[in-house]
Amino acid sequence: MSTRLRLDLAYDGRDFHGWADQPGLRTVQGVLEAALVRVLRLTPQQARTTVAGRTDAGVHARGQVAHLDLPDQTVQALRRPPRGAARPGTLEPPGPPETAGGAADDGGWAGLVTYRLNRVLPDDVVVLGARAVPEGFDARFSALWRRYCYRMADTEAVRDPLTRGHVAWVRGRLDTDRMAAAAPVLLGEHDFAALAKPREGATTIRTLQDLTVSRDEATGTVELWVQADAFCHSMVRFIAGALTAIGGGRHDADWLAALLVSGVRRGEPAVMPAHGLTLERVAYPPDAALAAQAARARTRRSLPG
Amino acid sequence: MSTRLRLDLAYDGRDFHGWADQPGLRTVQGVLEAALVRVLRLTPQQARTTVAGRTDAGVHARGQVAHLDLPDQTVQALRRPPRGAARPGTLEPPGPPETAGGAADDGGWAGLVTYRLNRVLPDDVVVLGARAVPEGFDARFSALWRRYCYRMADTEAVRDPLTRGHVAWVRGRLDTDRMAAAAPVLLGEHDFAALAKPREGATTIRTLQDLTVSRDEATGTVELWVQADAFCHSMVRFIAGALTAIGGGRHDADWLAALLVSGVRRGEPAVMPAHGLTLERVAYPPDAALAAQAARARTRRSLPG
Repeated sequence: MSTRLRLDLAYDGRDFHGWADQPGLRTVQGVLEAALVRVLRLTPQQARTTVAGRTDAGVHARGQVAHLDLPDQTVQALRRPPRGAARPGTLEPPGPPETAGGAADDGGWAGLVTYRLNRVLPDDVVVLGARAVPEGFDARFSALWRRYCYRMADTEAVRDPLTRGHVAWVRGRLDTDRMAAAAPVLLGEHDFAALAKPREGATTIRTLQDLTVSRDEATGTVELWVQADAFCHSMVRFIAGALTAIGGGRHDADWLAALLVSGVRRGEPAVMPAHGLTLERVAYPPDAALAAQAARARTRRSLPG
Repeated sequence: MSTRLRLDLAYDGRDFHGWADQPGLRTVQGVLEAALVRVLRLTPQQARTTVAGRTDAGVHARGQVAHLDLPDQTVQALRRPPRGAARPGTLEPPGPPETAGGAADDGGWAGLVTYRLNRVLPDDVVVLGARAVPEGFDARFSALWRRYCYRMADTEAVRDPLTRGHVAWVRGRLDTDRMAAAAPVLLGEHDFAALAKPREGATTIRTLQDLTVSRDEATGTVELWVQADAFCHSMVRFIAGALTAIGGGRHDADWLAALLVSGVRRGEPAVMPAHGLTLERVAYPPDAALAAQAARARTRRSLPG
């Protein structure tokens, strides 16, 4: 028997070759699972995580979600902290474990997991919270939607060296009114083949639930907020490329509509740089509806479009 | 004869040994002046800048101001861009120079300086704007006030890896009400010797005009905004250390008042890490009042306290 653990994560993607484990490369999954092995004394197999969004190299996250199954003995050991004769260096620090806000945390044994992971993780990965979830929870397939933000500084914006790691600097001026007017073309269910890198055996049909273009009042940064049930490979970066071409005046909404209908990826739009993209949030249904949602998502995306 | 040029600058202090030029070390001044030499064909002597705030190693800026005097022939050459037989590689790109917003820029020859500097500067330094100013303008001595922000993420805040370069992560929880209640103790004119590293021959008397403690609603980040006519060495980082000790419950406002009056730096407060500190803004009087303000500042700070 086991207990399913949900982890909420944030990371700076700059020094990672993306989420997914790759031999010999530094990946978020690799770093996280190594930390799980270390602080929970799991085998690499037991520390295997499933993630909501397999972010590409250089892409950031503020609201990533992963899950793994902890063996009962691990949970029991966490519930029963070592007592009695404390040896120097083995004592847990006094007081409640230091956890960051932003995600639910049961404050008990799962809170201890958060605390221990953050103590060993490098400072470009943060566990925002950990909690036990029902068996039916699947970080990938239970997700109702994913929400990304693509950030750009054009010539209207302040190019702030302090945020350059997650804001892409682009040439020229972007007309955000033009971009916002074209955005609705993409809303709803479409085959996004013209705006995605294909993955073998997977459909490119997705439902875009929201696409908002705005300019931050203080900094002038252009933000594209994009929400969908799920995204194809590089899809947000292609959407950002298409809207940038429209905002810069090279194309218009009709071009975007025709491109989408064509279903074929061409020389345009360009894929925008990874570092402007951040996975901001993944939403899940209430516990009672979890299993049903996972079954739906699994069916939809494994069938041909 | 010469023309005084004001430069507005932003930089990420992480990879710099502070503002001030030091042989063999990477400094903002060193990098900026090398760029000035290169793009304006100045001698190192001519490229010498005067700055509003000599930030320490690791300290950032979003509103730094510097000035230098350009020889007339340099300004004339900027006003008369090369025409006629263009050789490959020497053409200016078409269209208006790409300049970042946030600071006044005359769009003419000074705008060209901004454009050329940003083209050669590394991406951790940005020229926000450049403009010709009256002779009476002195980036250091004409300044009316400097405004810094010290940012901290305590256990209430989200530890965001994307902003970790300019937000200091601190242990425990900070009671911002306690901090805000103690802050007025420091307002007004005081000898800040207990909260500064001394510099030989310089007074430590300063006038603190504002000290605001707030918690960002979205992220939970604690922000200390501090404004003064000028600051002593490490003064903001000592003030942040004192308020952190109060916010954490170790000390109270009376302790801070007694410390200030004592005029002696002790083991406490600790100096907070440099990377949490950002020079946000420097304010200057209108052109007509520039020379008078510079004379006042020069007199005040060169006399013994």
